[in-house]
Amino acid sequence: MAKDKKKKPQRPKAVTPRGFRDYFGEEVAERRVMLDRICEVYHHYGFDPLESSAVETVEALGKFLPDVDRPNDGIFAWQDDDEAWLGLRYDLTAPLARVVAQHRMDLPNPYRRYAVGPVWRNEKPGPGRFRQFYQCDADTVGTPTVAADAEICMMTADAFEALGIAREDVIIRINNRKVLNGVMEAIGLGDQEAAAATRGIVLRAIDKLDRLGDDGVRALLGAGRKDESGDFTKGAELSVEQADQIMGFVTAGRETSAATCARLSELVGGSDTGPEGVRELETIAELLEAQGYQSRAIIDPSVVRGLDYYTGPVYEAELTFEITDEDGQVRQFGSVAGGGRYDDLVKRFTGQAVPATGISIGVDRLLAALHAKGRLDGSRAAGPVVILPMDRDRMADYQTMCAELRNAGIRAEVFLGGGNMAKQLKYADKRAAPVAVIEGADEKAQGQVTLKDLALGARLAAEIETHEEWKAQPAQITVPRGELIAQVRAMLARAEG
Amino acid sequence: MAKDKKKKPQRPKAVTPRGFRDYFGEEVAERRVMLDRICEVYHHYGFDPLESSAVETVEALGKFLPDVDRPNDGIFAWQDDDEAWLGLRYDLTAPLARVVAQHRMDLPNPYRRYAVGPVWRNEKPGPGRFRQFYQCDADTVGTPTVAADAEICMMTADAFEALGIAREDVIIRINNRKVLNGVMEAIGLGDQEAAAATRGIVLRAIDKLDRLGDDGVRALLGAGRKDESGDFTKGAELSVEQADQIMGFVTAGRETSAATCARLSELVGGSDTGPEGVRELETIAELLEAQGYQSRAIIDPSVVRGLDYYTGPVYEAELTFEITDEDGQVRQFGSVAGGGRYDDLVKRFTGQAVPATGISIGVDRLLAALHAKGRLDGSRAAGPVVILPMDRDRMADYQTMCAELRNAGIRAEVFLGGGNMAKQLKYADKRAAPVAVIEGADEKAQGQVTLKDLALGARLAAEIETHEEWKAQPAQITVPRGELIAQVRAMLARAEG
Repeated sequence: MAKDKKKKPQRPKAVTPRGFRDYFGEEVAERRVMLDRICEVYHHYGFDPLESSAVETVEALGKFLPDVDRPNDGIFAWQDDDEAWLGLRYDLTAPLARVVAQHRMDLPNPYRRYAVGPVWRNEKPGPGRFRQFYQCDADTVGTPTVAADAEICMMTADAFEALGIAREDVIIRINNRKVLNGVMEAIGLGDQEAAAATRGIVLRAIDKLDRLGDDGVRALLGAGRKDESGDFTKGAELSVEQADQIMGFVTAGRETSAATCARLSELVGGSDTGPEGVRELETIAELLEAQGYQSRAIIDPSVVRGLDYYTGPVYEAELTFEITDEDGQVRQFGSVAGGGRYDDLVKRFTGQAVPATGISIGVDRLLAALHAKGRLDGSRAAGPVVILPMDRDRMADYQTMCAELRNAGIRAEVFLGGGNMAKQLKYADKRAAPVAVIEGADEKAQGQVTLKDLALGARLAAEIETHEEWKAQPAQITVPRGELIAQVRAMLARAEG
Repeated sequence: MAKDKKKKPQRPKAVTPRGFRDYFGEEVAERRVMLDRICEVYHHYGFDPLESSAVETVEALGKFLPDVDRPNDGIFAWQDDDEAWLGLRYDLTAPLARVVAQHRMDLPNPYRRYAVGPVWRNEKPGPGRFRQFYQCDADTVGTPTVAADAEICMMTADAFEALGIAREDVIIRINNRKVLNGVMEAIGLGDQEAAAATRGIVLRAIDKLDRLGDDGVRALLGAGRKDESGDFTKGAELSVEQADQIMGFVTAGRETSAATCARLSELVGGSDTGPEGVRELETIAELLEAQGYQSRAIIDPSVVRGLDYYTGPVYEAELTFEITDEDGQVRQFGSVAGGGRYDDLVKRFTGQAVPATGISIGVDRLLAALHAKGRLDGSRAAGPVVILPMDRDRMADYQTMCAELRNAGIRAEVFLGGGNMAKQLKYADKRAAPVAVIEGADEKAQGQVTLKDLALGARLAAEIETHEEWKAQPAQITVPRGELIAQVRAMLARAEG
C-alpha cells in the first residue's frame, strides 16, 4: 500500500475551489449582454463608469455584512508583506465610499457612478450560492434630495425593461428606514445605544417576512424561532403590543402609494423621525407618478433590507413571475436587486457626512431567474461554420476558404484535430456548427465543395425513421467553389428561419 | 500627546492598497471598447468564451512565474477555513489548463477558447506597474499542428487591426523553442536535468536583448552582469564559443522568413530537435504567406519569451512606433502581447500530454501605448446634457424634461446638488456637459427654455479677450419649450462637427 502510494506521481487536483465555478460559452455571452444593456441605461442617465480594484485594505472594507457565519466577517483576507491586511471586496458600495473619500476633490458633486464586476463572499457555499458573483451597481453620492432615490428607482425599472422583462413581471418596492425608526421610537426602541442590538434583530426579522411569513416574523420579534433543522434563532423579546405595532407597520401597504403613505402617517404620529420619513416617501411617490412609474414602483412598508448602514429610503426589485425551483416547488422568484440611502459610509473615512443612495442588481441571480423561466434559450449561440480538412497537406487552402467566410462576416473555423470523417462531424456537432464544409481531392479536382446543412440534418434526424430515408435527405449539397459564400449564407438563413 | 491621540477618532484610511488603482469614466469605457473589439475577432475565429473564477487552489495554479522577487511565488494567497490554500490567478493560462483537465470529457477537442479579465501579481509595484491588470487571451487546446499557432498569430494581427492600429505599427515575431533547444544541445546544454538551471539563465538572458543589448546579454551568458544600481545578476558561465553560438542563433534573423529559416537550418544542423523546430517555422511561414500576413508576422530568432513552460513556437506582438516615456526618452513601445505552445500544462493534472498554444494581449499596456501615442483622445467621452433645476419645487418638471431627452436618445441628467447658478454651471463643466438646460420661473411662464452651448462656450472662452465680447457671444439661446429636443440636437451636432 505504502509502496503503491510512493509510485503514484503527486499531481495537483483539477478542481475549482469550494463555492466557485466556471462559466462556459453562452453563459459568459449572456451575462456580457445583460451587463452591457444595464450599463447602457445607467450611462444614458448620466452615470459614469468606475472600476476599482478587486483588492482593498480590510480596514477600508469595514464590517457591514449581515448574518455572517464566518470568523473573519465573510471576507477573503490575507496579510500583505508590509503587514497590512488586504481583502477581496464583498460588494461595490464599500469601495465606492473609499473612492469618494480618496478622490472627492476631483469628482463632480453630486457624483453619479456605475460599476460592474465580481464580488467575493467568504460564506458557506450552497446550491446556487457561490462565493464569487457579479453585481451591477449605480449610486448617486453627495445629495440628500430624495429625487436621487426616485431617479434610481425609475432607472432600475428602465434597466429591467431594457433586458426585455415585461413591466408586469417586475415590481420595485420602496420603504424608508426613517419610518421604521419612527415606529421603533414609538415602542421605546429609539436611537439609544442600548437598543441597537434589538433594533438589528427586528430589522432582520422583518427582512425575512417573504420566507418565514407572518408567524415566523412574530416568533423572531418575540422569544425566538426554531427552524426545520432544529436550530434556534434568538428573538427580539418584544411584548405582544410592541410586536403588534411593528407588524402593523409592516402590513401597512395599501392599494396605492398615496393610501399607504396616509396609513403610515397615522402609525408614526408620535415620533420625530417617522413623519419626516413619510414625507420623503410621499415626495418619491409623486415623482414616480409624474413620470408614469406608479404601477412599476410602489411604496411598500414590508421592505427593510438587511444591511445596517441604510439611513433613509430603501428599495428592492422583485420578479413577480412564478418559477419551479430545484425542489419542484412553484414560487415567486423574488428579489433580484436592492439598495437604498446610506449617509454615513463616506463619513467613516472623512468624519463628514456625505449623503448617498444606490442600487445593486444581482446579475447572476437575474440570469438564473430568466433561465428558470425559459426566457434565455441560448439561441443566440450560433456555432461557427466548420471546415473539415480532408487533406492535411492543403491546410493553407482550408485557411483561405475560412478567411473568405470570415471576411463575409460569417463566424468560421478549420477543424484542427485528428480523426476520420465521423470524428470530424462529431466535433462539428459538439460545436453546434450550422454548416460543415468539405473539399476532398475529388471536389478539388472538379472545382467544387460539399456543404452539409447540420442544422437541417439535426431536424431531419429527429423526424426520419430509416437509414434509407436518412441517406436520401437533402441536407448535403455539392456546389461550385465560387459559390461557397452564397450557398453557406443561404443555409444559415434557412437555419435561422 | 497621549491625550490628543485618544481624542482623535480612529478612522480608516481612504487609500487603494499599494500597487492598485482606480479607473474612472473614460478609462473604463476605453478598455471595455478595446476588450469587446478583441473578443469579437476571437469569437469570429470560432473561439468560445470561458470565464473561470478569480480564485484557484494554489496547487492548481502551480509555480510558473519567472523572475519573482517574493517568497510566495508572486501569488496573493491565503488559507481557506478547510485548510486548503487559495490564491488569485496570476494569468489566464493556468486556469485554462485546470479547466481542460477538469472538464475535458465535455469540451470539444480541439477546444478553442478566449478569456478576458483581471489577473493579480504579488510583485513589487512600480511606475506603470500594477498588481492587478487585464489580460485578454485566446488558446487552442488539443492539437499539435502548427496550423493552430499560425492561426493565432494571424488572429492577433486581425485583432490589432480591429483596434484601428495601422499594419505598419505592429509586428508579430515568431520563434520556436525547439530551435533554441537544438542550439543548446549543440553546445552541450541538452535535455539533461543538470543543465536545466543554466538553460533557464540563457533563456531569460536572451529575453532581455531588447533592454540590455548585445553586450548585456553576452555578460549574462558569461560571468554575469552588474546593473546601474550596482546589483549583480549571476550569469550562465558559458564559454566565449558557447556564447557565440547562442548569439549567432539570436541574430540569425534575415530579410524574409524563408531566409531566416534557411540560416537557422545551418545553425542547428547537428541536433535532433533543432531541424524539427525549423521545419515547424517553415510551415508557419508558409501558412502566413498563403493568407498574406508575411509582412505582419515574421520569423525572428531573437524572441524567446521568459516563461519556462513553452515547448514549441513562441510569439510576441510589438508596437513599432516610437513614444516618449516618463523620462523623456524616445523609444519603441515594445511588446504588448505574447504567447506560444505549451504542451505540458494539462499533463500536470492528468498525466497525459495535451498540446496547446495561445496568445495573451496585455490590454492595459496596450491602452497605455495608445495614450502615449495620442491615439486615444477621449473624444468619445460625451458628457451628459445637464438640466439645471432653477426651482427645486418643480423637480418633477425637470425630470420630465430629462426623460424626453433620454427618450430621444440623448444622454441627460438633472443636477441634484445645491448652490447657485455659478455652482451649477461649474458642475456642468466638470461633467464635460455639451449643453445646459435652464427653465426658471420667467421661462416657465413664457413657455420657453434657455440652452447654453457649453462646448461652443468653451471654444469661445479660449478666443475671446474682453468681458463685453464674452457677454455678446451667441452660446446661449432661449427657445420655445416644444423645440427642446430639436434645439439640443442641433447644438450636439455643432459640438461634434
